[in-house]
Amino acid sequence: MVSTIPISDRYRLKTSQLDMPPRLLLGPGPANVHPRVLAAMSTPPVGHLDPSFLTLMNEIQDLLRYAWQTDNELTIAVSGTGSAAMEATLANVIEPEDVVLVGVKGYFGHRLVDMASRYRAKVHKLMKPWGEVFSLEEIKTGLEKHRPAVLALVHAETSTGVRQPLEGIAELCRQYDCLLLVDTVTSLGGIPLFIDAWGIDLAYSCSQKGLGCPPGASPFTMSSRAVDKLHSRRTPVANWYLDMGLLTKYWGEERVYHHTAPINMNYGLCEALRLVAEEGLEQRWQRHQANAELLWRGLEELKLVSHVDQEFRLPTLTTVRIPEGVDGKAVARKLLDEYNLEIAGGLGELAGKVWRIGLMGYNSRPENVLLVLEALAQVLSRR
Amino acid sequence: MVSTIPISDRYRLKTSQLDMPPRLLLGPGPANVHPRVLAAMSTPPVGHLDPSFLTLMNEIQDLLRYAWQTDNELTIAVSGTGSAAMEATLANVIEPEDVVLVGVKGYFGHRLVDMASRYRAKVHKLMKPWGEVFSLEEIKTGLEKHRPAVLALVHAETSTGVRQPLEGIAELCRQYDCLLLVDTVTSLGGIPLFIDAWGIDLAYSCSQKGLGCPPGASPFTMSSRAVDKLHSRRTPVANWYLDMGLLTKYWGEERVYHHTAPINMNYGLCEALRLVAEEGLEQRWQRHQANAELLWRGLEELKLVSHVDQEFRLPTLTTVRIPEGVDGKAVARKLLDEYNLEIAGGLGELAGKVWRIGLMGYNSRPENVLLVLEALAQVLSRR
Repeated sequence: MVSTIPISDRYRLKTSQLDMPPRLLLGPGPANVHPRVLAAMSTPPVGHLDPSFLTLMNEIQDLLRYAWQTDNELTIAVSGTGSAAMEATLANVIEPEDVVLVGVKGYFGHRLVDMASRYRAKVHKLMKPWGEVFSLEEIKTGLEKHRPAVLALVHAETSTGVRQPLEGIAELCRQYDCLLLVDTVTSLGGIPLFIDAWGIDLAYSCSQKGLGCPPGASPFTMSSRAVDKLHSRRTPVANWYLDMGLLTKYWGEERVYHHTAPINMNYGLCEALRLVAEEGLEQRWQRHQANAELLWRGLEELKLVSHVDQEFRLPTLTTVRIPEGVDGKAVARKLLDEYNLEIAGGLGELAGKVWRIGLMGYNSRPENVLLVLEALAQVLSRR
Repeated sequence: MVSTIPISDRYRLKTSQLDMPPRLLLGPGPANVHPRVLAAMSTPPVGHLDPSFLTLMNEIQDLLRYAWQTDNELTIAVSGTGSAAMEATLANVIEPEDVVLVGVKGYFGHRLVDMASRYRAKVHKLMKPWGEVFSLEEIKTGLEKHRPAVLALVHAETSTGVRQPLEGIAELCRQYDCLLLVDTVTSLGGIPLFIDAWGIDLAYSCSQKGLGCPPGASPFTMSSRAVDKLHSRRTPVANWYLDMGLLTKYWGEERVYHHTAPINMNYGLCEALRLVAEEGLEQRWQRHQANAELLWRGLEELKLVSHVDQEFRLPTLTTVRIPEGVDGKAVARKLLDEYNLEIAGGLGELAGKVWRIGLMGYNSRPENVLLVLEALAQVLSRR
């Protein structure tokens, strides 16, 4: 047993216990979470096939159906962050040579293009400036031209703060016999979203924004139309970890072991979803809208300009133009260093041009709006 | 803002707060975790690009290098469970038509075959009965015959309780110009393991066994030889979430956003790794060995037979043959229902034939050995 190879202590760090700063997270997520969710995260784990855990999984599925307003049987939490759930939607329905049309109006549209191409889809893009939305007419023209098997759109673009209206798109998709795939990462739990009523076939989200849980277990749902495409595949899903054919045997009645679920992440997610159900969606959406409007009025008073027209502005995430001559990065760093307050800069085309201020889930509270406005005022006046 | 679509309360469950049973997890993992790890899990999150989090990421990398005894620069935690890290090793080095040789002597060997084939490798299998190990000679013959680009072996087979000796295999792999990929899911943090001294090019593990953390963030490491293969790819990595070309820009000095890391999972993993460093590897390996031997002696006294020869038996996970006429599933269920004690049944070929008893990480303690032996004695005598 005793090894003859000497053990190296080169990386045997001597450090103290975990000690993280008390941040208020008003960026694009993660956001702070309710104390009940934190308590759930530290509950001693049970096994991934324990009867008590299987009951919890069922509960998560139902509560996700409520949050998403769907009856979809295939509604689960993917064992990874939102990007894993994003990849799961594409991986399960794309077969090589399938045409996929992606509406690109921000960073996450580009990510969908990148991911879809790795599954060997023929990817076409519908482009729009960062900060704008697609009209029904533009989408119809795109479908007519490309005849895709899948149309992928971002409901709430985390890079631009734009809400893409989705009403009417499903009818077009049915007309052109195509699945509708929607990114709801920054909308679920924060703004009106109706998977079934809007005819969405595939959707994914994350835990750390509108749902108010730490990141690590991510909502995924698939309509029966999409499941039909999965079942009629000619090739295996080109991703084992995210293969819904295998995952539904674990999340469904068969309870066949696939992977060891992230137990404590599911505890946290379940508790966060319970808080959503307790509050109620209508109340929750109104709270997000009211606090966002409070923020928008305050920003105007500071003479700061929102990047997006109010009609299409996300209450969960606001993009604010950085005024001429201001070093946006330095301002964000000062907020962090002096007030433990996180806001984010822009991504991609909007890097250096906007700040992103999030009011998501547990963090959508008037006191947080007041603080971020006052802190911004202080830091900007000191230039 | 106010939606005209009525909100359905069909899935709006009214449930109480999270309330999970107090299990002692002596199956194949997850195992129970140290209270300091649980406390870390419930620390309020910071952002995934917060300077304090970047420091934590560096610390995780160093502590993983210690636990694995490697200098590999590319040593990170994958944002998913062990199966995701498993898929990451294959996805990053396999290109279509690459020959991959997998040593199959249990359930997880078969999983490697399935995963590798999804990345369009030409997969060949080296087979061995469940409970045995490969000799150097058998491996040499396989390399000679198949001339693979990658040889994949399972160090600690969680389905059989077997430890595959790894000394000498790297020399063969270099002779045949092939990368050595090793599953260390049930060995890391529990038994002697030397990534560099044994010449392992790719390895993955999980957090919930020998490391003593809940599942959800998983160790991954890659030698410079393997990184060379990644850098010289002709095709993109066929998996966006696990693409090490992108992930190293986040974990490395560039700090380019890739995905939102599971913050609290990384808190837990870091704290678990600190506990490994505090205890020291030699001490930890000896503790696992001593408690396993205590278990083995006790099982013998109960006239229960271990499935694996003592020479190749894993101290982290023991497979015990279910005696003739005993309903193994019913026994496990009784242990759970009456004593909150989890042990597992067999997988695949060993389903119904063995129990699997794990003594991993924080759970490898004499009091747990005593309890499982006494509980087994009670339940078996009552037949």
